[in-house]
Amino acid sequence: MSSSVPSAIIHATAKPLNEAVLAELRAIVGAEAVLTADEDLIPYSFDGTAALKQRPACVVFPRSTEQVSACVKLAAREGRQVVTRGSGTGLSGGSVPMGGCMVLCLVKLDHILELDEKNLTMRAQCGVITKEIDDAAAKHGLFYPPDPGSMKISTIGGNVAENSGGLRGLKYGVTRDYIMGMTVVLPDGEISRLGNKCVKDVAGYSLKDLFIGSEGTLGIITEVLLKLLPRPAARRTMLAMYDSMEAAAETVSAIIAARIIPCTLEFLDRMTVQCVEDYARIGLPTDVEALLLMETDGHPAAVEDEASRMMEIARSHGAREVKMAADDAEGARLASARRNAFSALARVKPTTILEDVTVPRSELARMVKFINATAAKHRLLIGTFGHMGDGNLHPTFLTNEKDTEEMHRVELALQEIVDETLAVGGTVTGEHGVGLAKKAFLRQQFGDVSYVLLQKVKKALDPNGLLNPGKIFD
Amino acid sequence: MSSSVPSAIIHATAKPLNEAVLAELRAIVGAEAVLTADEDLIPYSFDGTAALKQRPACVVFPRSTEQVSACVKLAAREGRQVVTRGSGTGLSGGSVPMGGCMVLCLVKLDHILELDEKNLTMRAQCGVITKEIDDAAAKHGLFYPPDPGSMKISTIGGNVAENSGGLRGLKYGVTRDYIMGMTVVLPDGEISRLGNKCVKDVAGYSLKDLFIGSEGTLGIITEVLLKLLPRPAARRTMLAMYDSMEAAAETVSAIIAARIIPCTLEFLDRMTVQCVEDYARIGLPTDVEALLLMETDGHPAAVEDEASRMMEIARSHGAREVKMAADDAEGARLASARRNAFSALARVKPTTILEDVTVPRSELARMVKFINATAAKHRLLIGTFGHMGDGNLHPTFLTNEKDTEEMHRVELALQEIVDETLAVGGTVTGEHGVGLAKKAFLRQQFGDVSYVLLQKVKKALDPNGLLNPGKIFD
Repeated sequence: MSSSVPSAIIHATAKPLNEAVLAELRAIVGAEAVLTADEDLIPYSFDGTAALKQRPACVVFPRSTEQVSACVKLAAREGRQVVTRGSGTGLSGGSVPMGGCMVLCLVKLDHILELDEKNLTMRAQCGVITKEIDDAAAKHGLFYPPDPGSMKISTIGGNVAENSGGLRGLKYGVTRDYIMGMTVVLPDGEISRLGNKCVKDVAGYSLKDLFIGSEGTLGIITEVLLKLLPRPAARRTMLAMYDSMEAAAETVSAIIAARIIPCTLEFLDRMTVQCVEDYARIGLPTDVEALLLMETDGHPAAVEDEASRMMEIARSHGAREVKMAADDAEGARLASARRNAFSALARVKPTTILEDVTVPRSELARMVKFINATAAKHRLLIGTFGHMGDGNLHPTFLTNEKDTEEMHRVELALQEIVDETLAVGGTVTGEHGVGLAKKAFLRQQFGDVSYVLLQKVKKALDPNGLLNPGKIFD
Repeated sequence: MSSSVPSAIIHATAKPLNEAVLAELRAIVGAEAVLTADEDLIPYSFDGTAALKQRPACVVFPRSTEQVSACVKLAAREGRQVVTRGSGTGLSGGSVPMGGCMVLCLVKLDHILELDEKNLTMRAQCGVITKEIDDAAAKHGLFYPPDPGSMKISTIGGNVAENSGGLRGLKYGVTRDYIMGMTVVLPDGEISRLGNKCVKDVAGYSLKDLFIGSEGTLGIITEVLLKLLPRPAARRTMLAMYDSMEAAAETVSAIIAARIIPCTLEFLDRMTVQCVEDYARIGLPTDVEALLLMETDGHPAAVEDEASRMMEIARSHGAREVKMAADDAEGARLASARRNAFSALARVKPTTILEDVTVPRSELARMVKFINATAAKHRLLIGTFGHMGDGNLHPTFLTNEKDTEEMHRVELALQEIVDETLAVGGTVTGEHGVGLAKKAFLRQQFGDVSYVLLQKVKKALDPNGLLNPGKIFD
């Protein structure tokens, strides 16, 4: 499976590392923390964007910010490019190595360093698993809201580098909204410490916001200071079934018009519902055109009120059926329809290309219709699901990368979807990042003036192009 | 009055503009929109930081992004530095002109361009008054939360350039959290359009976050796309009186520990309460050591529950008296104690130096104690009020700028307060900005490595130092 069209097949010559440099690396991190054997490198030659592969020269596992700094200083001295990775769950090729580069795999920086209940913050190393962050918060009645689909295996550092989204974006925002500070190793190996536990801080430019979502191209984030919230005391999960996507979208509009901001408003289209039911046997009707998963959380009284209003709005906007989960367990079962969407679609054909175009919420129904028309026009299978409250769509191409003729049609369809997305004021990537997969579209989205600004920032902070070469920019 | 020690007295030679250039400027914006007469320039030679003054060469009033662009192109060609201002309410000297510069005053770009109810966004030109933004939102049941003290006269563009805070920061965040996009005129006059109505967008670096809070040193923000929220359906306002600042701070900690995030937790110390009562006759007891203003808003049932729990927490943590407003009018009257704090203090002595140091919430009581000890040590009058939930303190020096001996003691005290703030993990400015007033402390806060990064960003985006010279950096 792949997250995007593998248009960027990477070719680079792997210049082997000489023994003296390897010895220096081993002295920094320990001999067991440097991999160079071909068979050891294979698992680190790709990420969640599997059609993109390239063998690195070595993989290094530092255990501290200082070790990362020492490795980067060595790489800079040797002119050896560096690609950082966590769990490798990225869906835009952001941690795919370039040939001959040094991969810094940061999964061993895996300690939660502090949970500060008074200031509602958590300090963690970059390699901590996202779900462990929220689990640790939950033990204190606290909450780390961002929940990317990969949260059971992704690392918090990777989330910050990609500015990951998730299912709760509408109400709670994305990773960026929970980052108060960070430690970053710069391309020259120097260590920058940014931010603090202050709720307000306007001293200087917001450098941390520059590193968040910079996909490892400006610096290596080794530690983060996270903002936590009180854990919502109550939650209600509902599922609504529709005979048309428009009716589902109108329900979402009506909920917003009623001045309710639920934590989750997710949809699945007909093909996705059918694949999910086939895969997970949840008991979904397979003849619906759209399925809407709704969740509201917060104060118990507010949640009960909002949930009943949302049920009523769904019914009065054409839902064929609306179910409310009786308890958390049933809520989790209903939500599993959405959580299983990608896995269910991925079973159908050899290659699954998961797209990530995002439009203003008001344009979503129109965009889904456009995607379906494009699929028909190019004789392609596309299942679409995603975040209806956010306008964040995941049209998923079910194809076969070995079928070059079909892949050509996939490319044509993708360009048409991107063109339409940008025409209605959208973005080519809502949460997966640019990496290798989307860089061909970046200038089209930004326009020449703003694109040059992006390049100026990269040039200013990483003048020698040492970090994550070939990503975001050509 | 002044917002900080006028340590940076500005000296620059005013090179007059020649007639040909003035004619070009008049051709761009109209003859009536270019001021050059000495008496016309006086009101534009300072901002809310009144001890800092410098006469510009001219003041220009463009009416569109394109006119701003044309003015900047002309200034760039002539090597004439540009200082942008809105209403001039800034408290760190950010819009104080440099001698001989061109002031672009953007108050004529004052149109709300669109309110999009489906996407909960508003598009506005930079010169719209902040309160008008929220008033326009309110007409549709929507809410623009950031409420800086100056919101009745400040412009939204100035708020974005300074990343203004306000009284609702604890629950709702600051200006940055409500900016989805913007139009920026760059130092070469080119126009960059950033962001969109998408709730999620991870394409490229977050350039808008770089411009937010950049205090006019990187680009000129001419238009903004704002995020709106549903207007809270209910609100409760409470006032608690204490015999010790610690008890007030413990109340705040206990509220957070009870997993309540109120929209407002503001405090006044004894001297501020006395000045406010003397000024506004609200009926406050003048023998209290601390006064805590608390507000909760949201769903009516949640608000009633939270308000009664907050009252109980205040009582059980040593409040001598707790009042709850019966209605919005009484709530506004209670809140006026806090809203009047600065004006009330400003009456006492000829010069009022309003500080803005901010510490993690957990350090606030200790910091207030430190400030009081510092005031005593240096024989100074300091009234302190601010955002207790945020840790954002406004120690306010009541002094006389003509008394050089006293001003020397003010400087000593200020440096000690800054040292202590940074030692406990705080920031030199929570919401007022660096401008001229805080730039002497910026390197101390950032450290050498990160400070150099700030300089690199400025150099990359404004290599000739055309925009807002002398601000943030020396």
